[in-house]
Parts: sequence; C-alpha cells; structure tokens
Amino acid sequence: MHPLDEATLLSASDPAGLRGRTSDAYWNFGGPFGGVTAATLLRSVLDHGERQGDPCSATVNFTAAVARGSFEVDVRAVRTGRSVQHWYAELRQGDVVAANATIICARRNTTWSHQAARPPAAPDPGGITPMATDGRNEFVRQFEFRFVEGALELQPSFDGEPRSARSCLWLNNAVPRSWDFVGLMTFCDLFFGRIYHVKRTLFPIATVSMTAYFHVDGEGLAALGTCPLLGVADANVFHAGIFDQSAQLWSPDGRLLATTTQLVTWRD
Amino acid sequence: MHPLDEATLLSASDPAGLRGRTSDAYWNFGGPFGGVTAATLLRSVLDHGERQGDPCSATVNFTAAVARGSFEVDVRAVRTGRSVQHWYAELRQGDVVAANATIICARRNTTWSHQAARPPAAPDPGGITPMATDGRNEFVRQFEFRFVEGALELQPSFDGEPRSARSCLWLNNAVPRSWDFVGLMTFCDLFFGRIYHVKRTLFPIATVSMTAYFHVDGEGLAALGTCPLLGVADANVFHAGIFDQSAQLWSPDGRLLATTTQLVTWRD
Repeated sequence: MHPLDEATLLSASDPAGLRGRTSDAYWNFGGPFGGVTAATLLRSVLDHGERQGDPCSATVNFTAAVARGSFEVDVRAVRTGRSVQHWYAELRQGDVVAANATIICARRNTTWSHQAARPPAAPDPGGITPMATDGRNEFVRQFEFRFVEGALELQPSFDGEPRSARSCLWLNNAVPRSWDFVGLMTFCDLFFGRIYHVKRTLFPIATVSMTAYFHVDGEGLAALGTCPLLGVADANVFHAGIFDQSAQLWSPDGRLLATTTQLVTWRD
Repeated sequence: MHPLDEATLLSASDPAGLRGRTSDAYWNFGGPFGGVTAATLLRSVLDHGERQGDPCSATVNFTAAVARGSFEVDVRAVRTGRSVQHWYAELRQGDVVAANATIICARRNTTWSHQAARPPAAPDPGGITPMATDGRNEFVRQFEFRFVEGALELQPSFDGEPRSARSCLWLNNAVPRSWDFVGLMTFCDLFFGRIYHVKRTLFPIATVSMTAYFHVDGEGLAALGTCPLLGVADANVFHAGIFDQSAQLWSPDGRLLATTTQLVTWRD
C-alpha cells in the first residue's frame, strides 16, 4: 500500500463513525502534515456509500493540533440536490474537534469548456535537480520538489527586505502514485508557507483554513498516471500575524487541475 | 435602518436558535442575493456573545434554494483556541439546510505587515458613470457599479468566441453605509458571474460555495467610512457545468481588504 493510502486509511468504528491514525511518514513540526489531514477528511466522503459524483470543492479548517495516534471522523451529507451534494465532516480526538471540512461533490454534465487561465512557462522536470530533503521534516521526504522559480532560500534572520512570494515548481510523490482526489487534495497543501520565501527564515506557522477547487473529474485525473504536476504559489497580504496564499496545480500538458487558497497564522 | 442591516437582521428564537427573514430589497432571480445570505451567516457569529476577535475567513456553501420568507440559523463554536476561534453555522428552512458556513475569528497580534499584491490602476470613481440598474434584479439596484474595465456587454447569444473574464470596477452601496464585516462579506459576492462576461449572454447560474479572507480588522474597516471599494474579478476554468471565480476588494488608497473565490454551476 502506498504511504499516502496508509496515512489516509479510515476504518468503520462503532457505532457509526470512522477511525484513522496519524502517520509518522507524513509528520510535520508538531503534528501531521495538513495536506494529509485534509485528504483524510476528503476520503471520508469519497469512501461514503451515498456519495454522488466527484468532489469539486473542499474547505478544511485546522481547528486544533492533531496529536500522534488515533482519531475519529464523523461525516454526514448536509444536503443532496439533483446534481450537487454537500457534506460536513469533523475529525476528533476525544472531545476536541481537530479539523472540520465542508466538501461538495457534483455530477458534472458535459457541455462547453474554456480555460481562461494560462499555464506558466516551465522547462521539463527531467532536467531539474530535486530539492534535497535530507534532514527535513518527515513529510517533505515523501515528495519531490523541482523548483523552476522561487526556490526556498534561507538566511540566518530576516534582513528587512521582503522577497517575492511566488514559486513555480514541479511536484510529485517520492514513491510513484497514480493521481486521484486524495493525491490532488494532499498536493494543494504542498506549497511551503509563502512567508518563508518572503522573509527567508523559518519559524512556526499554522494553516487555519484551506479551500481547494477541483477542475477535473476522476477519469481525467486517473488518465494522468503518475506524472509530476506543475505548481504555482503566491501570496497577497501578510498582516498582523495572518497571511493568505494561493496556488494552482497544472498537468504537464497545460490543464489546470486544481486551484487552492489558504489562510495561515504565524508568530515571530 | 440600512436595507442591508434589515436584510441580515437575526433575532433570538426558541429554544436556542436565531430567526431571520429574506429581504425583497435584495432579491435575485429565484431567491435572495447570495452575498446577503453569506453576510447573514457571518452576522450570526458577529452577534454571538462568545465571539473572540474579528473574522478572518468565511466559507459559505449554498446548499439549497432559499425560499421567500423566514429561516432559522443555528451557530456554534466548534473550537476556541488561544487566538483563533472556529464557528459552524447552518441556515435552515423547515428540514432543509439551505446554506452552511465555517467562519474563523482571530485575535490578531501587531507585528510585521507586508502587502505583496499591487492594486490595479484605476481612475477616480467620480468620473465614471454608474452602470444603469433599472429593470435589473432587485439586489442589483442596492449597489453602484462603476466599471473601469470589463463591463457587462451582452449579445443575443454566445458567438463562440470566449471574451476576457476579467473586470475592474468601483463598487458601493446605493444607500451609503459605513464599512464593516457584514458589508465586506456581501461585496465579496457582488461580482457578476464571470461566465456572463466570457459568453456575453445571461442564463441561470448558482454559486455552490464561496470563501472570503479578510485582511483588515474592524477598526481599519470602520475608518474607511462609506467610500467606494475597487474590485477586480477573474476566472480560471469553465468546465462541464462548473466554473471558478476569484476577486479582490481594495480600498481607494490601495490596501487589499479582502480576497475571495467561489465555485459556480451553470446550465446552458
């Protein structure tokens, strides 16, 4: 089983909930990598017998630190319409809700398509050396990062001059894995905190909420196989301990697969 | 009382919920303008006695059509941390959940600020004639739209050539109203469906989910008085009956107040 499938595995628990377990393979500073927590909540919907259609939108809120060990997930359909279905999920450890999510699935009809956004120019990933991941947090070592632009450059301290928040890079799993929504959700959170790029220093940050929109159906995703995705990330505002970041995930042939935003808190 | 305050008014109902009523003044095609529904859910948190800090993030899902008349809102704190508080709210009519929301409030600390995004160039709003709103849906007439770029131009039918999805415009309330989070949330949904700009035709669309991030605190908002805001909206992908759109709201002196995204379904 791929480490990501193991990390997001949910089994039925009594009476009606689901049970999962944090994965050491995707450990971050003080808890599991948020992308895997988000993918676990998405999976509670994907695996649900009453799901209709593919996910098109997911908002995941990181409400408390997730401790190493087991957790429970409760998921319910809030509303099932003719073509759109709304879900609400909570991940709990004891009495504490550590994450919650609203997730939307839709049966898409097949009409007109138009991609207004244009893919960034980028050389083939084969010619780019992956970022060294030795000594990094565990989860980083589960992925490959091939920077086209805006690599993570660190200094001993912030020199007072904000650098660009933008990065463009090829991303993939270190152990090849075929694309599905669990993978796509995980990768929506795979962009380093933009404040690290702007200040060129590392310090504690925490995503409080992330939203992902999926612009592809399950069949289109599966057709990608295990290819790398091209990611672009940027930020708008860093203010009083909170910043936003946004990102896009592109297929190698220039199709926009997902757009995502998140809000992050920092202390310095 | 300003029409927007009346439209978003909630009163305590028995036993523990809140009760509101749709406003004819903000009627859209087949229900209330989504921006007002979103602002109503936000208000259920703003008015709550246990709220800590100002809202920084709100995701509102439009789960079913809202019928003309009364509705109930249930709101609960999912988790209160040291500086961040997570809320979940549902708007119901009878047994049907018509909208739900996850809303995050935060006590911001006062450290470093940096605005990476740059405001668009735009002439003063005073020299731009507002879009005519006669004969439009009721809610449109509650606002002023002064287009700098990408005005809504309509043709009898789509001519097969997609136009730009981007608009830049000054926005304000038709009846002046001081800025607060209820107003800012409402305006996050005030950008016409990007598909109307791209296809230059009108047809039924429905927002299924919107997310707004607020980059300003209540004091900073109040200091703006009743000035117009500069809005920029765009879209990335129109595919199989679903498209995304994103927007920014700027103060006249170039401060980014809010960023927002939404996912919209259409039938053609």
